Amino acid sequence: VSPVITLTTDFGTSDGYVAQMKGVILSIKPDATIVDVTHEIEPFSILDGALVLKGVSRFYGQGTIHVAVVDPGVGGSRRGIVTMAEGQFYVGPDNGLFSLILASATSSEAREIRNAELTLPDPHPTFHGRDVLAPVAAHLAAGASFKVVGPVVEDPVTLAIDQPKRLEHSLEGEVIYIDRFGNLTTNIEAGMLPEPVDTVEMGKVRIRGLSTFFDQVPDKEALALINSFGFLEIAVNRGNASRQFGMERGARVRVHFKAR
Amino acid sequence: VSPVITLTTDFGTSDGYVAQMKGVILSIKPDATIVDVTHEIEPFSILDGALVLKGVSRFYGQGTIHVAVVDPGVGGSRRGIVTMAEGQFYVGPDNGLFSLILASATSSEAREIRNAELTLPDPHPTFHGRDVLAPVAAHLAAGASFKVVGPVVEDPVTLAIDQPKRLEHSLEGEVIYIDRFGNLTTNIEAGMLPEPVDTVEMGKVRIRGLSTFFDQVPDKEALALINSFGFLEIAVNRGNASRQFGMERGARVRVHFKAR
Amino acid sequence: VSPVITLTTDFGTSDGYVAQMKGVILSIKPDATIVDVTHEIEPFSILDGALVLKGVSRFYGQGTIHVAVVDPGVGGSRRGIVTMAEGQFYVGPDNGLFSLILASATSSEAREIRNAELTLPDPHPTFHGRDVLAPVAAHLAAGASFKVVGPVVEDPVTLAIDQPKRLEHSLEGEVIYIDRFGNLTTNIEAGMLPEPVDTVEMGKVRIRGLSTFFDQVPDKEALALINSFGFLEIAVNRGNASRQFGMERGARVRVHFKAR
Repeated sequence: VSPVITLTTDFGTSDGYVAQMKGVILSIKPDATIVDVTHEIEPFSILDGALVLKGVSRFYGQGTIHVAVVDPGVGGSRRGIVTMAEGQFYVGPDNGLFSLILASATSSEAREIRNAELTLPDPHPTFHGRDVLAPVAAHLAAGASFKVVGPVVEDPVTLAIDQPKRLEHSLEGEVIYIDRFGNLTTNIEAGMLPEPVDTVEMGKVRIRGLSTFFDQVPDKEALALINSFGFLEIAVNRGNASRQFGMERGARVRVHFKAR
Repeated sequence: VSPVITLTTDFGTSDGYVAQMKGVILSIKPDATIVDVTHEIEPFSILDGALVLKGVSRFYGQGTIHVAVVDPGVGGSRRGIVTMAEGQFYVGPDNGLFSLILASATSSEAREIRNAELTLPDPHPTFHGRDVLAPVAAHLAAGASFKVVGPVVEDPVTLAIDQPKRLEHSLEGEVIYIDRFGNLTTNIEAGMLPEPVDTVEMGKVRIRGLSTFFDQVPDKEALALINSFGFLEIAVNRGNASRQFGMERGARVRVHFKAR
Repeated sequence: VSPVITLTTDFGTSDGYVAQMKGVILSIKPDATIVDVTHEIEPFSILDGALVLKGVSRFYGQGTIHVAVVDPGVGGSRRGIVTMAEGQFYVGPDNGLFSLILASATSSEAREIRNAELTLPDPHPTFHGRDVLAPVAAHLAAGASFKVVGPVVEDPVTLAIDQPKRLEHSLEGEVIYIDRFGNLTTNIEAGMLPEPVDTVEMGKVRIRGLSTFFDQVPDKEALALINSFGFLEIAVNRGNASRQFGMERGARVRVHFKAR
């Protein structure tokens, strides 16, 4: 079976741009298995792309090739790269899209895309996703060696998530991602909560303790839980927390620990 | 050829949740053929999911495995089930999602998902779609027997569509589904209209007789027809009936039969 | 490897209509490779469908079968056709959807779909996409000869893009397509700009010269470039030109050439 190629972009699905990329891939590797991760990344939101990709990658096997294109700097001086981490490949612009993958990888190597034999001739300056990244991914799926992509990049661009602030009996973080249900993902990871949680506060919202699943609180009430990404999340049972509380990305969230 | 696995969810396509499910499926059954039915079911709208799935299933062959996840009760006491009906499998929460399939099936059997060998270890309490339902579907596609899923469920949850009210010379129903074109599907099935239709009324809209296709009336005019789901539908030629008439789900529709 | 079947429709992805088509295709040709071009064509916008399809087709290989359904006249007198152009097949209503493909093809032939062995029995009058076009495409993918589709159509319906007006030192065109980024594609093709461009004007927006990529101008500033479709495009670096300037389809654009 051919390795899986996944696609993560901010292209939307209305204009055929993604299908152009798929045509390029299938012309090089006709039996490729292509999976759309999403094409609804908010335009130019590199951090969103990085978070979604991080959430997805651990469910894919060795040899999977992830193409990600959130690329406001396309055509300029930013490099195109392939990063290998934990046996999977990440093909995209060198703008931080893969830095959450790299942050948790035990080993990785990045190479700059320089080998013109792996790309389409005369790439259009505004569409490297189609003319550079897609064909590189297809050639890797078809068996091209990672080494022939180009020279090693020692300093790939990284993008950091702001870390929560540790206070004496509390932790102050923020909302970094809002999903389609309006659930609010914070930058507080499960491992940052070693002590029992007393309350979670966000604006005027005050939640006692952590829940495990949504239906543990009544309909339309707020709860906090560790979500499937491994982060603290504020949600509303059978509702939309973002809309109900008027909260956007960047909203401050404070976790109070129980006094011992 | 591997059996088809279809996916019907309210997950949207922006967050990578569906791609996480696909990664799980492809890790178990790398040559699976996966078809997205939709991920745009309105969040938590079990009836919408049931209707869309019912519309789709008859176009798929024996052995197809349909995974459906509209699951507000995830993590709580609701069961996960696999239902076999007319030679196809339906994998999802036991909350009524499959009850329209069951209502028209000549024979069916439901089993509760209890076999931990078919699911991921330590399923996350808010994402059974990924950790329980997707792997069960993949194992069925890979040849696992329906019997090993778990014990038979005698009383799967059912969800009924309100039936139209039969009056002397008319039938009173309601709008149960609105599609992307704004076409209004009612709960009046073709078989409930044995007599010639005189008029169809909805609010101030009055339509004479039934049409067969849209262009039988002038642009932007209303018509009524039996749609491709087999239900009476009110539409506007080259327009959007829901918007033009301000009609939502639940709107009352009355069919008057011709006097004999 | 089975030929690729692509799908371009205005069906949206919420109602399962596309999945019904895929079920039909997979029942006839179980190993078909199906690619979604888009299902977000604005309802009934034949020209949008034609443009998107034109952008996509050159990235697909010989034998590819493109199904396109933007079909307000479904069920009426409009014909269903298969057009062969440059070794690819186009299956859809005869309403101009393929006319941009035809306009640039060196040779082509269209045939009317008349062979009932290639379609589902009793096609529903409002869903030929599923009952006529999808099965024809699947049969072609499975090896049916183009000739058996039906008789040659000598006069397929064509749809023209308004041509820009050539003035003495300028060219006056208009916006014909707006993509998800709000980039404005005009009807001015690269080949219509043989002389150096001095300024591009649209309403109060005045852009000096052409750029090659977005980052050549500061953030939120306008630029003009030849886009990946080969047309003159007005865009905003890391912004949305349509929203920023309040411009819709049909907006007038004037290109002034440099005096020699």
